[in-house]
This record gives sequence, C-alpha cells and structure tokens, in this order.
Amino acid sequence: MKKIFVIGLGPGSFEQMTQRAINAIENSDIITGYDYYIELIKDKIKGKEIFSTPMKQEIDRCKKALEYALQGKTVAMVSSGDSGVYGMAGIIYQVCSEYPEIEIEVIPGITACCSGAALLGAPLTHDFAVISLSDLLTPWEKIEKRLLLASEADFVICIYNPSSKKRADYLKRACEIMLNFKSKDTPCGYIRNIGRSGEEYNIVTLYELKEIKVDMFTTVIIGNSQTKIINGKLVTPRGYRNL
Amino acid sequence: MKKIFVIGLGPGSFEQMTQRAINAIENSDIITGYDYYIELIKDKIKGKEIFSTPMKQEIDRCKKALEYALQGKTVAMVSSGDSGVYGMAGIIYQVCSEYPEIEIEVIPGITACCSGAALLGAPLTHDFAVISLSDLLTPWEKIEKRLLLASEADFVICIYNPSSKKRADYLKRACEIMLNFKSKDTPCGYIRNIGRSGEEYNIVTLYELKEIKVDMFTTVIIGNSQTKIINGKLVTPRGYRNL
Repeated sequence: MKKIFVIGLGPGSFEQMTQRAINAIENSDIITGYDYYIELIKDKIKGKEIFSTPMKQEIDRCKKALEYALQGKTVAMVSSGDSGVYGMAGIIYQVCSEYPEIEIEVIPGITACCSGAALLGAPLTHDFAVISLSDLLTPWEKIEKRLLLASEADFVICIYNPSSKKRADYLKRACEIMLNFKSKDTPCGYIRNIGRSGEEYNIVTLYELKEIKVDMFTTVIIGNSQTKIINGKLVTPRGYRNL
Repeated sequence: MKKIFVIGLGPGSFEQMTQRAINAIENSDIITGYDYYIELIKDKIKGKEIFSTPMKQEIDRCKKALEYALQGKTVAMVSSGDSGVYGMAGIIYQVCSEYPEIEIEVIPGITACCSGAALLGAPLTHDFAVISLSDLLTPWEKIEKRLLLASEADFVICIYNPSSKKRADYLKRACEIMLNFKSKDTPCGYIRNIGRSGEEYNIVTLYELKEIKVDMFTTVIIGNSQTKIINGKLVTPRGYRNL
C-alpha cells in the first residue's frame, strides 16, 4: 500500500494525542517530523526509520515522504496541533497531486485555538475566526482586510503566528486594526507553550494586548462584544440572550 | 476538591479521544452526558454514578453538576467534539460564577471543523471562520452579517448547526449570502456523522450546496478563492504564492 498519514499530535504532551494518532504511528514504516515531536513519541517508534529536514523545508519533506510512499512504504508525517490547520496536510496533497495512487489519510489533532481556549476558559463558545499573521506566503493587505472584517462581524478572533523576529510589531498592528470595531476593553488572552513545559497564559484587554511581546509559540484570542471575565477566566456566552 | 471537568470526546469514536480525557473520566466520581457518549466510554465508567438530562436542558445539567461539586464530588461533563466550541464549557463557567471555589478544568477535544476537514482533505490550511446557523440564542441578522463579512474577507467558512426541523432552509439562505462574494464554483464539502456509523462526506460547488439537504449532524465547509479539488479532495493552499 502506498500510504502517507498526516498526523496532528495535539498541543505537545503525549496524553493529548488520540489513540488513532498513536495507532497510525505504530502502523507506519517511516516517521518524519521535528525533533521535539519525534522525542514525544519515541517509545512508539522504536526500530522505525526516521527522517527529518530543517525548519521551513516543508516541501522537501513532503517530496521525500512521497518518494518513500512510492517505494511502498507507509509514511507518518507528524506535527503539533492539527495537521490540517496551517499544517502539512495541504502541502502533501499538492505535492502528491500527480500521484493519485498514493493514499493520504489526515488524522486530526487538537489545534492551538482549542487547546489555548481551554486554558483561558471558554472564549470560543460562539462564532470565531482564525487568522495567521504570517505574511511569508500571504500579502499583508489580505491579512489586514480579514482582521478588519472579522472585527466588524464581531467574531471572537484567534491569532496564529502572531510574531517572529522579522515581524516583531505585527500583533500591535493587528490590535490597531481590530480597535476600529472592537472596544479597547475587550477581554483577550494569550497562551505560550501550550501543553508543554513553560506553559503560561494571561488575560488582558485589547488595549493592553498592543504592547504585549509575543513569540512564535504564542496563540492569541481576542473576545467579541459579549466576552467577559468570570472568576479570572475568559468566557464568551453561547448567545445574545440571557442565560 | 470541588471540581468539574468539562470534557470534549472528539468526533465520536473511542480512538479519537485523548488519553487526558480518558484519565479525567477515570478520576471523576460522577459522569454526565448524552446516552450516546456515555455508551462510548462505558468501559471506563463502571461503578461510577451517572446522571443525564434531556436534550436542550443544558443549564439544568450544569446546575446539577455544580450541586454535586459543592458536595465535594468530582464531576465529568462529557460531550462530543470540543466542549469549548459551541459546547458546555461557557455555560458551566456562567452557572458557577458565584462559586469561585469550584475548580473548572476544560479538556479540549477535536472539534467538528477539524475532524470534518480531515475527511474532506485539507480545506483549513489557511484562515477560516466558524459560524453556527442556529438562531435559537442569536439573532438571524447577526448570523447574516457574519456570513456576509466572512465571505467578503475570503475566509474558508465552516458551518455548524446548518439545519434543524424548524430551520430547513437556513443553509440555502446562508449560501445565497455567501454568493455575494464567493464564486458559485467555490468548492465546498459537507460531512455527516463524523467518526461514527453512517459517516459520509461529499464535495460540491457552492451553487450546488444551496439545494443539499442537511441535518443537525452535518458540518459544512465552504472554500475560499484559492481552494481547489485535488484527486477528489478539498485543498486550500497555505498561501497566495505558488507552491
């Protein structure tokens, strides 16, 4: 069988993986992923072949996975969170587009907006939008437009990739856009290192969020007009009528 | 300890739960949830007390959970998907607002947009918005506004609760709104009974989606301007430049 599993491991601790993800890893011949995730599953992959490529070389990694799959090996590509949300699943379909004989199975995991929301309280009880601030492959104008319209629509907004060395002020710029439609007192939260050592979260207002320094391991959630703080947690009610 | 776990079990099969969810269930004294989910975890809850309430009586269920927790019992409230996404987590924080001594721990699960996306291919590789069509607690005008602005922003849109007996034509109305900004050829997918018997999915155009009959167990994903079909799967590229 020519098969590639694209597996989301969830937020970074072994107990937050699903049994389905673990089974797929055990049923694969070859495993690929960043070292951190390989380490997390090392008890499950003894004796299996492992290959890795440096960060940002995702396409090379997919091509290598394809090569192995064409040889009849079952390949597991593992990543954190959900491999379908800003993950490898899309790229692997694109790389394998000329090879319909390759079976691709995407195994979902818990993505950062869900694991982050659970730490903050319950901010995603109502409609929300998920936006990445990375402009590596998307024009910044498109990102700005989405931030503006999502704010106008009163979505809870969850931000992935809020910052990097080259994009140190992007979260601040995003906050300024959201402030066109969201109140400066809107409750927000941010979470670092979800599910692993150094996990921390904080709740601030949208105005305060502007000045918060975040890194690429941070996920940010901005409330909607109904979001409030209850006993130190961020909670969006499930509707606009009273409980 | 006065503790309530609010646990998301994921898309409905035992192997899609996380070990963390299973551990929390095993560490609880009392379990509550709909029969279907209780059945799914029955091997893990032998000898534990179980209580349930009819559908739509979520607030009563939360109040009962609070009552047990105040007695010093550890309560597990289980539900499908992620308990934080249109789930019970928000309500439990609201119901317990006067009782800060109750510890609430939300344990995330895989929500339907992620499990549904994995079946369809990789439609959520880029920014997306999640919208419920239920107007039970939200004015329809607010839902319409979100559909319109999310379409204008070129989000992939994931729809929860697309229909019910009383809302048979809501998906059609939503499609008509999205067609203001999305092409009628936009690739879309819908998934029924994710992760359980009767699981099925289909890929159609946005124009065709208008006439599709869906039920409350269906999740719908509408592509963005970049979404395409590759080998029968729905794929959104991760950016706007070439691979």
